[in-house]
Amino acid sequence: MNTTFDSQVREMAASMGFMEPVYVTQPNLPPLEEVVSILRPAWDRRWITNDGELHARLEAELARLLETPHLDLFCNGTVALMTALRALDLEAGSVITTPFTFPATINVLYWSGLRPVFCDIQRDTYNLDSSLLEGHITHETRAILPVHVYGTPCDTDRIETIAARHNLPVIYDAAHAFGVRRQGRSILSYGDISMLSFHATKVFTTAEGGALATNNAALHSRLRRLKNFGITGEETVAEPGINGKMNELQAALGLAQLGGLNADREKRRRLDGIYRHQLQNEPGLSLLDKPRDVEPNYAYFPIRVQEALFGMDRNTLYETLKAFNIRCRKYFYPLCSSHPWCSAEAGALPHAENAANEVLCLPMYGQLPETWAQKIGTIIKSLGCLARA
Amino acid sequence: MNTTFDSQVREMAASMGFMEPVYVTQPNLPPLEEVVSILRPAWDRRWITNDGELHARLEAELARLLETPHLDLFCNGTVALMTALRALDLEAGSVITTPFTFPATINVLYWSGLRPVFCDIQRDTYNLDSSLLEGHITHETRAILPVHVYGTPCDTDRIETIAARHNLPVIYDAAHAFGVRRQGRSILSYGDISMLSFHATKVFTTAEGGALATNNAALHSRLRRLKNFGITGEETVAEPGINGKMNELQAALGLAQLGGLNADREKRRRLDGIYRHQLQNEPGLSLLDKPRDVEPNYAYFPIRVQEALFGMDRNTLYETLKAFNIRCRKYFYPLCSSHPWCSAEAGALPHAENAANEVLCLPMYGQLPETWAQKIGTIIKSLGCLARA
Repeated sequence: MNTTFDSQVREMAASMGFMEPVYVTQPNLPPLEEVVSILRPAWDRRWITNDGELHARLEAELARLLETPHLDLFCNGTVALMTALRALDLEAGSVITTPFTFPATINVLYWSGLRPVFCDIQRDTYNLDSSLLEGHITHETRAILPVHVYGTPCDTDRIETIAARHNLPVIYDAAHAFGVRRQGRSILSYGDISMLSFHATKVFTTAEGGALATNNAALHSRLRRLKNFGITGEETVAEPGINGKMNELQAALGLAQLGGLNADREKRRRLDGIYRHQLQNEPGLSLLDKPRDVEPNYAYFPIRVQEALFGMDRNTLYETLKAFNIRCRKYFYPLCSSHPWCSAEAGALPHAENAANEVLCLPMYGQLPETWAQKIGTIIKSLGCLARA
Repeated sequence: MNTTFDSQVREMAASMGFMEPVYVTQPNLPPLEEVVSILRPAWDRRWITNDGELHARLEAELARLLETPHLDLFCNGTVALMTALRALDLEAGSVITTPFTFPATINVLYWSGLRPVFCDIQRDTYNLDSSLLEGHITHETRAILPVHVYGTPCDTDRIETIAARHNLPVIYDAAHAFGVRRQGRSILSYGDISMLSFHATKVFTTAEGGALATNNAALHSRLRRLKNFGITGEETVAEPGINGKMNELQAALGLAQLGGLNADREKRRRLDGIYRHQLQNEPGLSLLDKPRDVEPNYAYFPIRVQEALFGMDRNTLYETLKAFNIRCRKYFYPLCSSHPWCSAEAGALPHAENAANEVLCLPMYGQLPETWAQKIGTIIKSLGCLARA
């Protein structure tokens, strides 16, 4: 990087930059009128939360769509995950998880009397490396909490074989994995419980929101009562529960969105194709593999930037793209294991550390115009070319 | 109670009963169009959560209205209360509270590594009896969590003098006390933190929702970051926080409601007057005192039923009123201390036990027609008269 490079970038940005910020994502919102027309009967009956009709409909629709027998809606994914941990009656101890995730995955452990133990990730999938898993299991291990990062399914077979051998429950953080299938089977069919997030940054959103899915009917009843204070009847509280309920406004937004999900995914698929076509042979950039047996949701488009070959490092690319009004995100930097307050045993996490330093997520959402994706690809290629010159 | 009584009740119910259920409360909803017009700009900008503009406006408006320097909105009051406990950095131990409250007050303690210690209540205010408070303090006490039951202010002076003497923080559960003032001063100005609930059953509602108020600027910053994962910058997580955020749909509902709050309170005030006029001299019924120095919010209308004088007990009255389609609520029965799983030290709680067995909350909400309140009063008086005959 030198003055010539800087002035060339400024010149390029002036002619090619976007007029308005292009964010990494944008919620797929239906027309507000559709939300209103779904919400109105609940409004007129003045029933806006607590087992409302829209809540029941959305639960049923999502369970069908996502092919899970039991699904419970929550106010957000973090409270859902905390409730899942509670439902498993884990004693104080540790949970094996990945450092390459959004802070929520780890933070809920601290709120639940548990400690994270970090397992390194696989270089290519960014998911917990199941070949290292068993080495982390001790007599203090209480559960395994892998994350389907960017919607790529974890190595579920191996994880669950190991978990079964040690009699440990598996909770998947499936915040990224809405609608993903593998070998014709829902991603939610794995493990004891899966957590979904419906935050505004996700492919399906209720503004804030989330859900838990399980194959286990007893666990489902437990989750259902835990999210409503433990109440099981007008005069019975079976155990101390909290408030994890989703309200009817959120449920109406969810219902209004269902009809557009396929079209949104198709748009994302095309954008994914455009980015891949543009960037797949670029020196120093690597793209996320698309496993043959997976039906993806195209939620994210992470690229990996290797400075030696690309000509600039990820942070420089991130900052330089800002000059073009392209607001990428360093998902996930910093690593959860690197926070000064993180009390986890700090083993070697070389792949996670590399990923945290090299990955950048490009703008990806259904309403992103294809010409913009094309242009973002061109800008990245040009920047690499300039940097290497 | 005998066959004659039963047949008289049936006859009365057939002629005087309501056609549709009259619930104990109903949310004070603005026209849906008003919510929509407030929400639309956020919708169009696709910014529906995470420090949205409506969220900021509602926080500012409520802080002004409720005369508190610092207010933070939450997805619900329970998550708010859990966050308040976290912000106080309490070590494992116990919290002195009241058994005469909604389960959430107690349940969050169990989710926070704390145990409840129950203090009995005052007979007339239903609030924690401050004269008993000091007797419950031990070396394991970490905080005091009183509840302003039915919106009646606790004996804050004495509670806070004792708390200060023992260097204990005070968190008020002000879920019932939205808008209450005493001696010209906001109820939220007491203690270290106060929790408000905006659940659909409350005088101000965001469907689900809640807030924390504090006079302490440092505590406010802490609460704000704890409700957003502990995030303090794009690349810094200062501590493990959770997701306690309120979204823009909820905030829009809150904003749309502000203009109608005074009118709603005036309607409640008139209903309160009608009930009082009807029931104040009824043998065996006692009504909640209206302290002279308190500006109440008329959120609830609890009556206390003394079987020996009224002629029937509270449970019979509750069931009999159901035959008239009047759906009162036994706030709070059963006592939180009576759950089989409750691990609290069970001291004598005579006043709380009496209250749990004798109190019934009558329908009370702004849209309740005055003629209905009149009729409910008449029915209760007639039932007492019949029962005593």
